[in-house]
Amino acid sequence: MNNTPWTRKDLLSLYDLTKEEIVFILDTAEEFKKVSQRKIKKVPALRGKTVVNLFVEPSTRTRISFELAEQRLSADIINIAADASSLRKGETLLDTIKNIEALQADLIVMRHSAAGAPNFLAPRVRCGIVNAGDGAHSHPTQALLDIFTMREKFGRIEGLNVSIIGDILHSRVARSDMWGLLKLGANVTFAGPSTLVPREFIKAGVRVCDNLKDALVGADVVNLLRIQHERQRSGFFPSTGEYAKVFGLNSDSMKYIKPDALIMHPGPINRDVELSSALADCPQSVILEQVTNGLAVRMAVLFLVAGCLK
Amino acid sequence: MNNTPWTRKDLLSLYDLTKEEIVFILDTAEEFKKVSQRKIKKVPALRGKTVVNLFVEPSTRTRISFELAEQRLSADIINIAADASSLRKGETLLDTIKNIEALQADLIVMRHSAAGAPNFLAPRVRCGIVNAGDGAHSHPTQALLDIFTMREKFGRIEGLNVSIIGDILHSRVARSDMWGLLKLGANVTFAGPSTLVPREFIKAGVRVCDNLKDALVGADVVNLLRIQHERQRSGFFPSTGEYAKVFGLNSDSMKYIKPDALIMHPGPINRDVELSSALADCPQSVILEQVTNGLAVRMAVLFLVAGCLK
Amino acid sequence: MNNTPWTRKDLLSLYDLTKEEIVFILDTAEEFKKVSQRKIKKVPALRGKTVVNLFVEPSTRTRISFELAEQRLSADIINIAADASSLRKGETLLDTIKNIEALQADLIVMRHSAAGAPNFLAPRVRCGIVNAGDGAHSHPTQALLDIFTMREKFGRIEGLNVSIIGDILHSRVARSDMWGLLKLGANVTFAGPSTLVPREFIKAGVRVCDNLKDALVGADVVNLLRIQHERQRSGFFPSTGEYAKVFGLNSDSMKYIKPDALIMHPGPINRDVELSSALADCPQSVILEQVTNGLAVRMAVLFLVAGCLK
Repeated sequence: MNNTPWTRKDLLSLYDLTKEEIVFILDTAEEFKKVSQRKIKKVPALRGKTVVNLFVEPSTRTRISFELAEQRLSADIINIAADASSLRKGETLLDTIKNIEALQADLIVMRHSAAGAPNFLAPRVRCGIVNAGDGAHSHPTQALLDIFTMREKFGRIEGLNVSIIGDILHSRVARSDMWGLLKLGANVTFAGPSTLVPREFIKAGVRVCDNLKDALVGADVVNLLRIQHERQRSGFFPSTGEYAKVFGLNSDSMKYIKPDALIMHPGPINRDVELSSALADCPQSVILEQVTNGLAVRMAVLFLVAGCLK
Repeated sequence: MNNTPWTRKDLLSLYDLTKEEIVFILDTAEEFKKVSQRKIKKVPALRGKTVVNLFVEPSTRTRISFELAEQRLSADIINIAADASSLRKGETLLDTIKNIEALQADLIVMRHSAAGAPNFLAPRVRCGIVNAGDGAHSHPTQALLDIFTMREKFGRIEGLNVSIIGDILHSRVARSDMWGLLKLGANVTFAGPSTLVPREFIKAGVRVCDNLKDALVGADVVNLLRIQHERQRSGFFPSTGEYAKVFGLNSDSMKYIKPDALIMHPGPINRDVELSSALADCPQSVILEQVTNGLAVRMAVLFLVAGCLK
Repeated sequence: MNNTPWTRKDLLSLYDLTKEEIVFILDTAEEFKKVSQRKIKKVPALRGKTVVNLFVEPSTRTRISFELAEQRLSADIINIAADASSLRKGETLLDTIKNIEALQADLIVMRHSAAGAPNFLAPRVRCGIVNAGDGAHSHPTQALLDIFTMREKFGRIEGLNVSIIGDILHSRVARSDMWGLLKLGANVTFAGPSTLVPREFIKAGVRVCDNLKDALVGADVVNLLRIQHERQRSGFFPSTGEYAKVFGLNSDSMKYIKPDALIMHPGPINRDVELSSALADCPQSVILEQVTNGLAVRMAVLFLVAGCLK
């Protein structure tokens, strides 16, 4: 671990990182991607280390991706799901974390519905904290896998035009992508129903569009966010059918897109809502490659933060 | 893996297999049975391979049996239970499976309430699919463990008289036993309330009985299916007490059975419904040996299909 | 395993053990405590052994502590939670355990709401049974970790004054601490609302107090039990606010305590109910050390009982 620019025991948000740190994670992830392509998909990097996956908000795919990353690093793994947790018994979150620390855990991978929870906890424990999504705040490994996938395809991030479309307001993915992409020199556009695209992001350097066409023209990457049906019930947009017509990506809207543009989605897809079924499976779609790269990025992050524990 | 007659990356149904393939699994399972009798119950056969247990229908004992088999083969294991799965978020089953594949999983052990789900998925993914029960269609490892247990006790399957008693209509166990046993040359009898024993199985070569006595006389094996209480509520039979009197196996009905006949049950037992408590624990009962053999059979299946992945 | 005074395949209750057996577990735990302080927190002591965690009553912290102990001993682990268990299907508990035994499990760590369940099962199976809490009866590893922590701080148990405060009536922790401490020569005091402190324990050699002050004066250890809010609803005490005022430990009541007395709590803490938040985090509090020691004690117990399996 000499000569590494990585010195953090936690990964909380891409907002905190320098360009060099982000690039270093991506470079490390490239190495780890090869592990999952071997016959024996395992390295002993975290053998005898304990990783606790504390998911206080339900998640299947992020939890599985982290758990597999931990297995391939040979860590010992404890899963704690919200429902089973003693949180229900009225214990404070800090007490829960202090108890996990007292079990000599090394890393805590944490998802929580409250924005800022990992930032509050990280300076208060010896364990490393990896944020697996906190409220609408941050989801750094999702952004890293998005950026990794773009870099793998285009060979660079600088100067890429990336359009992120959908419910920006509630999306930790959009925020995380934005911080990472801006640091690496990409041009970021947000588009979606005006109730769901806060104009304050303009100050951060983002272009904001009210219509899909403007967001698609000239884009190198189109990243479609998942529409949460409960948002519709809350009146943010009239109906999912209406949403699909105005902001869904389908063969009609494809005419505005460059032929080598990438279609991305954090999953799980609502087929024929934010993305037509045909396009989800078309050659420009790299949605499943994102999943594959997520594993590599998470292996890299776990490996790097574990190397900075005292 | 040279000179093996096994060439399939999936185990979907015994209906698909040749007699030689079934016998080859049973022979392989005999070898693996020894592993669980060692002091160190582990072999490195699947080290560095990832097995995902995708149980979209609840199950404890089949899931545990598979999970232990995977551990004893040294695989890395991910458990996905229906409730936790992103299936709830409206993703299609094929998308779920494609995502698991993108994580470079090697095998998916799958239980699903929809008959045919594994058959639909298997040709669409690189991963091997092992059917752990799909609707009322197939449960091949249960049938293999039943047949393994019979073969272990009698030294052969050919010519054995096997009577399967209970709710044949809804039973994937009965169907799977039937296909396997017929291929290996056994004589199969189905018995149970007439609402629950479809006569169409006669065409497949099965004898169908309306009363217990006819099914018991001459039987080498009596396999009792579990009565699902919800069937009774649906009116398929009047009451569990009534069922116990007419089709339950107890000391009265034992007089019709050969003294060396085996009593089998897939578990969990409803004591004093389909099987009297005394008989469940009598020397002719091999119910717990079925559990032990299930582990050996599942180790063999996982090992064989893993050897056929590209 | 020569020259060991440990000959039991089960750990059911400290009531069953001799003073020498308890001391031997504590001495063994001291050795295992060092494992969790290493860089690679793992020994191969239970490699190739199968441990089943059967939690028929919900638990997070005890389950995690056992699971980590098992991982650090390199065991293969199966978790069965109450909700998922086939117990729901009406199978008897003995059948469930017999099925687990048929899978060649070595140890069953078991929590159950029915007092006496592990004692009923232990002589009926070849597997070792470790009681992780049964009803209001016994929780031997909690008592062992409490006693381990006291011994570590004071260098002895003999002659220590230990006051246990709270809902003694429903507490398996209080009963287990009592049996262990009395065997090792400590003086035990119980205090709490009179509805919750049965006077029958006087016969066992315990001092019973009706007020907090008498329990605190002269105490070397003050062990505060968790108040279960549901008890209050059942009318055992008027309100948690009232409880906190009369039996909660806070800066006021601290004036009665020796300056080197230990404050203990089995967790999770209700801050400002049984224990003020300031005291929970004060230097006399060893609550998190109890958590750390619990892991060491459980590693020792699992190791010792596994060594006595036939």
